[in-house]
Amino acid sequence: MMLQDPSTKYRRMYQRVNLPDRQWPDKEITQAPIWMSTDLRDGNQAIFEPMDIEQKFKMFQMLVKIGFKHIEIGFPSASQIDFDFTRKLIEENHIPDDVYIEVLVQARDHLIARTFESLIGAKRAIVHIYNANSPTFRNKVLNVNIAGAKALAVNAAEKVKEYAAQYPQTDWIFQYSPECFTATEMEVAKEICDAVTDIWEARPEKKVILNLPATVEVASPNVYADQIEWMHRNLERRDGVIISVHPHNDRGCGIAAAELAIMAGADRVEGCVFGNGERTGNVDVAAVALNMYSQGVAPHLDFSNINEIIATVEECTGLPVHPRHPYAGDLVFTAFSGSHQDAIKKGFEFQKDQEVWDMPYLPIDPKDLGRSYDAVIRVNSQSGKGGIAYLLEANYGVVLPRRLQIEFSQVVQQYTDANGTEISAEHIWDLFSQSYVYTGQNYYQVKNYRLADHNGKQTVQFEVKAGDEIRHLSGEGNGPISAILNAIALPIDVLNYEEKSIGNGANAKALAMIELQVQGQAVSGFGVGIHDNIVTASIEAILACVNRLIIKGALEAEHIAKAV
Amino acid sequence: MMLQDPSTKYRRMYQRVNLPDRQWPDKEITQAPIWMSTDLRDGNQAIFEPMDIEQKFKMFQMLVKIGFKHIEIGFPSASQIDFDFTRKLIEENHIPDDVYIEVLVQARDHLIARTFESLIGAKRAIVHIYNANSPTFRNKVLNVNIAGAKALAVNAAEKVKEYAAQYPQTDWIFQYSPECFTATEMEVAKEICDAVTDIWEARPEKKVILNLPATVEVASPNVYADQIEWMHRNLERRDGVIISVHPHNDRGCGIAAAELAIMAGADRVEGCVFGNGERTGNVDVAAVALNMYSQGVAPHLDFSNINEIIATVEECTGLPVHPRHPYAGDLVFTAFSGSHQDAIKKGFEFQKDQEVWDMPYLPIDPKDLGRSYDAVIRVNSQSGKGGIAYLLEANYGVVLPRRLQIEFSQVVQQYTDANGTEISAEHIWDLFSQSYVYTGQNYYQVKNYRLADHNGKQTVQFEVKAGDEIRHLSGEGNGPISAILNAIALPIDVLNYEEKSIGNGANAKALAMIELQVQGQAVSGFGVGIHDNIVTASIEAILACVNRLIIKGALEAEHIAKAV
Repeated sequence: MMLQDPSTKYRRMYQRVNLPDRQWPDKEITQAPIWMSTDLRDGNQAIFEPMDIEQKFKMFQMLVKIGFKHIEIGFPSASQIDFDFTRKLIEENHIPDDVYIEVLVQARDHLIARTFESLIGAKRAIVHIYNANSPTFRNKVLNVNIAGAKALAVNAAEKVKEYAAQYPQTDWIFQYSPECFTATEMEVAKEICDAVTDIWEARPEKKVILNLPATVEVASPNVYADQIEWMHRNLERRDGVIISVHPHNDRGCGIAAAELAIMAGADRVEGCVFGNGERTGNVDVAAVALNMYSQGVAPHLDFSNINEIIATVEECTGLPVHPRHPYAGDLVFTAFSGSHQDAIKKGFEFQKDQEVWDMPYLPIDPKDLGRSYDAVIRVNSQSGKGGIAYLLEANYGVVLPRRLQIEFSQVVQQYTDANGTEISAEHIWDLFSQSYVYTGQNYYQVKNYRLADHNGKQTVQFEVKAGDEIRHLSGEGNGPISAILNAIALPIDVLNYEEKSIGNGANAKALAMIELQVQGQAVSGFGVGIHDNIVTASIEAILACVNRLIIKGALEAEHIAKAV
Repeated sequence: MMLQDPSTKYRRMYQRVNLPDRQWPDKEITQAPIWMSTDLRDGNQAIFEPMDIEQKFKMFQMLVKIGFKHIEIGFPSASQIDFDFTRKLIEENHIPDDVYIEVLVQARDHLIARTFESLIGAKRAIVHIYNANSPTFRNKVLNVNIAGAKALAVNAAEKVKEYAAQYPQTDWIFQYSPECFTATEMEVAKEICDAVTDIWEARPEKKVILNLPATVEVASPNVYADQIEWMHRNLERRDGVIISVHPHNDRGCGIAAAELAIMAGADRVEGCVFGNGERTGNVDVAAVALNMYSQGVAPHLDFSNINEIIATVEECTGLPVHPRHPYAGDLVFTAFSGSHQDAIKKGFEFQKDQEVWDMPYLPIDPKDLGRSYDAVIRVNSQSGKGGIAYLLEANYGVVLPRRLQIEFSQVVQQYTDANGTEISAEHIWDLFSQSYVYTGQNYYQVKNYRLADHNGKQTVQFEVKAGDEIRHLSGEGNGPISAILNAIALPIDVLNYEEKSIGNGANAKALAMIELQVQGQAVSGFGVGIHDNIVTASIEAILACVNRLIIKGALEAEHIAKAV
């Protein structure tokens, strides 16, 4: 077991608020919050190679296209690249009129001055100051008491107000983050936040953003929701405040924390597309948005070309999107398991006539994200018949009869069990062809035939190469199939026959599938013929099946002898 | 914006239970649940190349070592590999006495027979049956009504009971999963679960597992918690039932769902180490366990060698662990940002004397997972002085004076701004050496010296190569530093002087750091000397600093001329 008993070393690093009448657990999310992307700040500061200006610009354009109206672009007082990037956006007019660029700055005079310098000429901007107020930070890092922490915030807020007044041509929003909010006593957080909004004169027509970060995720998300609801209910000037949340993901619950916080009263969510950021990352705003989308709530963020967004994020951050990442991973719309595949296949059949999306195992339509259905079904040695049938249908237009599905799934499974690998649609088709489709090889080969309709009776004459000799066969029946079977004169009955076209126009072919049963035996088999001519396809299907039954030993030499 | 308004296409696919008196939001997790690893089943069925027997065995041994007592090893009736693997474990006696192996089987007679065949001789085993009862599945996939769905479950439960009776030497636990539980009406789920536990005669001394899966995650985790609490409060034979949860991660909230479900009454959690499984994966049981651990609750799972576990999981699944994966990712204990680094540095200083772990930005001690502190601090162009100082201290034992930290951080930042890349401790050391450490080049070079102590006065005589000429200098002072400075006779004062040993034993050297200020100017600079001899190190530090001040232009030619 664990080398160390954790009870002596660890304890909960948060204080729960007493909120027996909490309201959030009964709430649903019914509208999108304001989204703030910090991909270019929190995300950028946490990667091996921070973005260069070109990459920052590419990311910025992507964020604008997705629909973010608050975009934190960096820390211009701390980084020359960020300063230059801010100037580039402003001077080259890259910022849409409805987008606020946002910059972070520490609560120090010369840094604030430099920050405002970087923003000269911006139409709209958010200046974001922060300081940490938690006991750990007060006692160990900053060496201040509560009044000292409050003074740091108040002084910075005043500085920001003073500098902003020098640039009245910009539409300013002020933002304050009490860093490590979740590890701070709520009364302390409220006192300091109230002091800041007082200085900034927060009011409905001039709102202030109070961002309440889970700088480190230290509790389950319900605890965060309680804290947010407590602040929502207790903050002064609430109607002049935009409550923002900034969840990190240390416990893997960042998305849940954002959602419960919205239910608890948060108006705004800060995060990164696919969750980049310090350590485990910020909350993945794409997932939060698409969670809403998949329940009918418009997120006002556009991920309809998610593959392009993935490519940009991976390029700019140097970090991969994991194959199982919600909505974005390569495997998240993929069902390997047989029972899942069966259900999806049935679901797609029902979905055709339905307006409301209701698909087993697919909470969102991959097409809404610009992803194809190609990856929905994958086949490995754990997969059953549904996936195989789906792949043949989707890729070759071949709909297998149910018993053929079952029979063929064993062929595929034997193959994948032996080879232990995923199998592509093309490979499945090869296995299918080898197993069932008439190839002109094996025992019986059809050579030439003539078909005639005479008084409602179908007659057929054809040549078959059986072994080394050519045999001339003829038969009569209600239609071509029975005529052919009568001509072959083997002890077999038709259990099932299907023929359909595959492909279109000039490339269309007939696909004939026949199931034959050996008389007096519980042995049946399928055969398939594919030909331009529907009759040839049928004959081929029958001969393919006969050949398989011979190979299986279900038709003996004596039967075949009779067929001469 | 999104091409399509989601409100017509999507709606919530779950029914909330009415639970105004829900208890779970006030609960804390105080003890570990029973853990069930489904890495070898749900995880294995969802990867490109399912594990071969050797890989399955390696994974099984890892799971046993971690401490899982319930291990789902596969689907023996559906896969020959799984059947053979089950036989191998039993026949070769690989299963510890306190471990239950578990197998999944569909509710069909011949599959159940085959499953029990695979388990012959097992000491303890869990047989796990399932069927889906949600409206989508009833109506679209199975084409049954509620009674029909119930009949499927009841019939399977009876079959399992019958077969188990044939093998009384095995200690059996029966498990039923109403698949798609979260999308099922609670009353329906309860009715079917109660029918199953009735057949199995669930009682405290012969408990039955009811596993209530979020087969697809369709709601925020509080909704799942409400559903689990409702079942917890309403199920029949509750004291004979182990309520198990099996959260998937489609909305990215699987970990939160597991945690809130435990608070709501769940006794057992099914998932995979690092969250493998269909689509977005199962809940990551390692994260749930380590979340507990980091709050002082023993999870009874051992991740004290997490790197080895990561290697095994990556090898067997063919899937990577993401760099930001909670607890396991390469970057999750890494702070790139300057303010974070400063805080961690201070936190480490305080932590030395403390029993309880309380570190800024590090909710768990990396050492508890067998990870070093090496990766805690990384430096890129966004990083400040704290990280740089930490890396020099951790790797070279060099503690920089605060002003030197600040000065040097600009050197590093210029470098990283220009090169846009992460910088290693070694590279920082190179930059530090190039900037500060006496190299025997540049303007002043020390050649030979003699030191004497005379009546409490220190005298020094030494040769300096200044430019092209050798100068013989001598001076007197209270100690070597002042004697050397008097000998040099430049208009400089000592602001700060520190000397300490670096390295150990025979390799120990003296590191001298001096800060000199040019008289009458607000210009100061640092110099560093490293030598076996503490006096040589001091002289070198002074000369290194003088050289830097000359290069900076702070010491003019006229000053230097005087020094002859």
